[in-house]
Amino acid sequence: MTPAAAYPEPRLRAWEARTDVPLTVLSAGFLVLYACEVLLTRPGSPLWQGLETVLWVLWAVFVADVAVRLWLARDRRRFVLDNPLDLLVVLAPFLRFLRLVRLVGAVSVLTRTLRDDLRGRVSSYLVVTVTLLGFVAALGVYEAERDAPDATITTFGDALWWVLTTITTVGYGDRYPVTLEGRLVAAGLMLAGIAVLGTVTATIASWFTEQIEQSRARAAREERAAAPGAPDPQTWVELLTEMRRLRARLDELEPGPGRPRD
Amino acid sequence: MTPAAAYPEPRLRAWEARTDVPLTVLSAGFLVLYACEVLLTRPGSPLWQGLETVLWVLWAVFVADVAVRLWLARDRRRFVLDNPLDLLVVLAPFLRFLRLVRLVGAVSVLTRTLRDDLRGRVSSYLVVTVTLLGFVAALGVYEAERDAPDATITTFGDALWWVLTTITTVGYGDRYPVTLEGRLVAAGLMLAGIAVLGTVTATIASWFTEQIEQSRARAAREERAAAPGAPDPQTWVELLTEMRRLRARLDELEPGPGRPRD
Amino acid sequence: MTPAAAYPEPRLRAWEARTDVPLTVLSAGFLVLYACEVLLTRPGSPLWQGLETVLWVLWAVFVADVAVRLWLARDRRRFVLDNPLDLLVVLAPFLRFLRLVRLVGAVSVLTRTLRDDLRGRVSSYLVVTVTLLGFVAALGVYEAERDAPDATITTFGDALWWVLTTITTVGYGDRYPVTLEGRLVAAGLMLAGIAVLGTVTATIASWFTEQIEQSRARAAREERAAAPGAPDPQTWVELLTEMRRLRARLDELEPGPGRPRD
Amino acid sequence: MTPAAAYPEPRLRAWEARTDVPLTVLSAGFLVLYACEVLLTRPGSPLWQGLETVLWVLWAVFVADVAVRLWLARDRRRFVLDNPLDLLVVLAPFLRFLRLVRLVGAVSVLTRTLRDDLRGRVSSYLVVTVTLLGFVAALGVYEAERDAPDATITTFGDALWWVLTTITTVGYGDRYPVTLEGRLVAAGLMLAGIAVLGTVTATIASWFTEQIEQSRARAAREERAAAPGAPDPQTWVELLTEMRRLRARLDELEPGPGRPRD
Repeated sequence: MTPAAAYPEPRLRAWEARTDVPLTVLSAGFLVLYACEVLLTRPGSPLWQGLETVLWVLWAVFVADVAVRLWLARDRRRFVLDNPLDLLVVLAPFLRFLRLVRLVGAVSVLTRTLRDDLRGRVSSYLVVTVTLLGFVAALGVYEAERDAPDATITTFGDALWWVLTTITTVGYGDRYPVTLEGRLVAAGLMLAGIAVLGTVTATIASWFTEQIEQSRARAAREERAAAPGAPDPQTWVELLTEMRRLRARLDELEPGPGRPRD
Repeated sequence: MTPAAAYPEPRLRAWEARTDVPLTVLSAGFLVLYACEVLLTRPGSPLWQGLETVLWVLWAVFVADVAVRLWLARDRRRFVLDNPLDLLVVLAPFLRFLRLVRLVGAVSVLTRTLRDDLRGRVSSYLVVTVTLLGFVAALGVYEAERDAPDATITTFGDALWWVLTTITTVGYGDRYPVTLEGRLVAAGLMLAGIAVLGTVTATIASWFTEQIEQSRARAAREERAAAPGAPDPQTWVELLTEMRRLRARLDELEPGPGRPRD
Repeated sequence: MTPAAAYPEPRLRAWEARTDVPLTVLSAGFLVLYACEVLLTRPGSPLWQGLETVLWVLWAVFVADVAVRLWLARDRRRFVLDNPLDLLVVLAPFLRFLRLVRLVGAVSVLTRTLRDDLRGRVSSYLVVTVTLLGFVAALGVYEAERDAPDATITTFGDALWWVLTTITTVGYGDRYPVTLEGRLVAAGLMLAGIAVLGTVTATIASWFTEQIEQSRARAAREERAAAPGAPDPQTWVELLTEMRRLRARLDELEPGPGRPRD
Repeated sequence: MTPAAAYPEPRLRAWEARTDVPLTVLSAGFLVLYACEVLLTRPGSPLWQGLETVLWVLWAVFVADVAVRLWLARDRRRFVLDNPLDLLVVLAPFLRFLRLVRLVGAVSVLTRTLRDDLRGRVSSYLVVTVTLLGFVAALGVYEAERDAPDATITTFGDALWWVLTTITTVGYGDRYPVTLEGRLVAAGLMLAGIAVLGTVTATIASWFTEQIEQSRARAAREERAAAPGAPDPQTWVELLTEMRRLRARLDELEPGPGRPRD
């Protein structure tokens, strides 16, 4: 996934190493400010306008970052393919927040307890990502729906509940978005829901498979050990000893030219 | 999963061995009393208050048990990581009932018929756990919703039906919780539903994989047997016999110093 | 699954072999008559009473069959474990129809084209079983709901549509059962839906795994072939030839006692 | 999947190679015209009648193509089994459009970047196929429902939203088809939804399995390298050298008849 492994981009790497932490902080800030704007202010109020301005500024920073990196990249086509998330950030800057998650997780927890535990790593990513996505989706759908006529999602609690019923693909239908923005958020959430279902299933399935794999591998090892075709070391030793003795016997027959050959 | 394998906790083990059965009985009792309270009494009635008191006492016992074990544990951080269920019990004591299940299952059925049958073990756990969770969830949502205005879950039958539509992620929406407590129960149930879907799929998938694994392993074994590089035992016997004969012939040439070497 | 492989039951086998075809025909007839009763007659009409009588007679036959087999079985506990379907038949005789499917499938199609194709076999079973289950469930829910007050499933078309939305776990909620019988049918259908989802996923997943398995196995084979430790047959021939030549040379030294040893 | 691998059909191959591109273009055209008819015209209007005529002509062309190929095929039964999609095209010509996808994908992208990436290939197919299916289903359900009494899908936007809630198996039930045509479209879409869920899960699961497979294979390789039974090449060299020396020694004993034997 990381381009570093695939092809050298010294200048790009340098830039990313330098900007990683500040951008992560900014995106965390973005999410917090966005939440405040949605939950605490009403559109049109002075505070709302202030927050809106700040958010647009942060947005511009993220866009600028991607633009700079695209400019620094040698292989631009590859950069686009390797960084879909970063390009998505231009559309949805809070996703950048996921990088914070990755950072935290990678450094603090995973390196200690989950070094080889693929499932543990994936599960923790899943939980954090889904929680973030769900919270952001609830913010988005609430902002979009709260003032819509005949909307069913009119409180933030309703929005959280709707997110839950949607991402688990239960979909009671007691709450559903009616605006275009709300439905776009729902679309992202449903796709996320499918990915969640898939990842959970895959995690469990891989655990199963590994268990059976291990027992199978154990059986195979034993069977290989008991295989008749496999020469055991003793045979080898025996064979070579036999050999040496033979030559020794022959040398005894009449010493001389045989010696230097050793 | 069991810490015993991971690190030694003699005092903790001793305590758990001693308290396992009584606590399991208590948790079974807890579930029964809770069911009685929800299904047979109305809040405020004398019987209700009596049951409520007993349930709070049992709750305190469970909390005390976890506290004692946490105090006995040497590696406390690890204890918390290894016993999420037991900590959850502090919040939802009936989950302790699952230990009864484990006990019963482990002792009576599994040891006899499912020694190596991973899928069988998982399936039986799944069925029992889901049944219990569903019943408890129905109790909880019924208690939460029955007196709520514009509630759609007003009978225990409705609650059971709602549990079914939720845990299978069908979610008709003819019944859905409207209270906060009810929605929290629903959240747990939906996550359980995803886990159920995942586990069922994984069980079937692992069966598939194993079938194909086996045929593949069979093919590999045959192919290995037919491999040209593999020396068959006859060759070895032949080789050593050859050798022995050689030395015998040489010894015949002129006996003496060769003998003691054997 | 078939007990024959697991333990000998000569009398049971003989009985099953003799009764398999007639019982399959009877169960097909049962399904047809049941469909006619539900779709063509109204409860209480003479035709309805006639069909009802016939169905109860067929039911008795199925129960008698299971009773006889249980009586013939040596290991009764095992019989119960090995024949859940047949015991279920006592509750839902039309399931016996699945045996017809198995027969037909096994004989006509599978033996020809799907001898080793596990996925193909499973898929065809899945399609036939789901179709049958869906049809039967539609009959059952329609019979249960059509006369219920505030029922949403009032035509057989609605019933089929509801079956589809349920077994795919979509669950719009425009149609849903309100009677106990209808909800019991729904419960069976939802569990079937989960199994369907799981089996479909598992089929696709196993295909994936097999593809990757194969490429991995190919790689492993090549790598094993190139392994330095593997003695090639030439070496063996060379070695033995060497040996034979040696003895030949020694026999030339002085013939006699060596000969008979061969 | 392609019959070419399975059995020779020279004439069929030749025809298909000749007609592939034009038919793909026609089917793309079919989809575009169908979309125009549904979205831009009202039934009965002159433009609608013109488009309808063209669509029927294109349809006839597709049917003729299948008829010709069926006539050219030697093994007709096999042709039917191998080309379900093409026979489906007679019922739903726009599916032919999928061939365009296959063409484009295979030629442009996959051959370059996804040569061995099974998951990448499947994912890209999935995305394109689902998008197309969803768009076509939205067209179909919109055409079927827009003029129906008590229809809930009355705009194309509603249709797209309904497609999304259906294919993800969320199924809020705020929008659902009420006509037979609409429900048939829904049936296809739900089955597609199950397939999507399954494929997504399988893709993730196979990635998991492969990761674990690789680590397992690595372990097995190391373990095999360290196996005691495996003769290392040095031993072989040593053994043969021993042998050669032996014969040399014997030849020295008394030269002559031994020489020509080499």
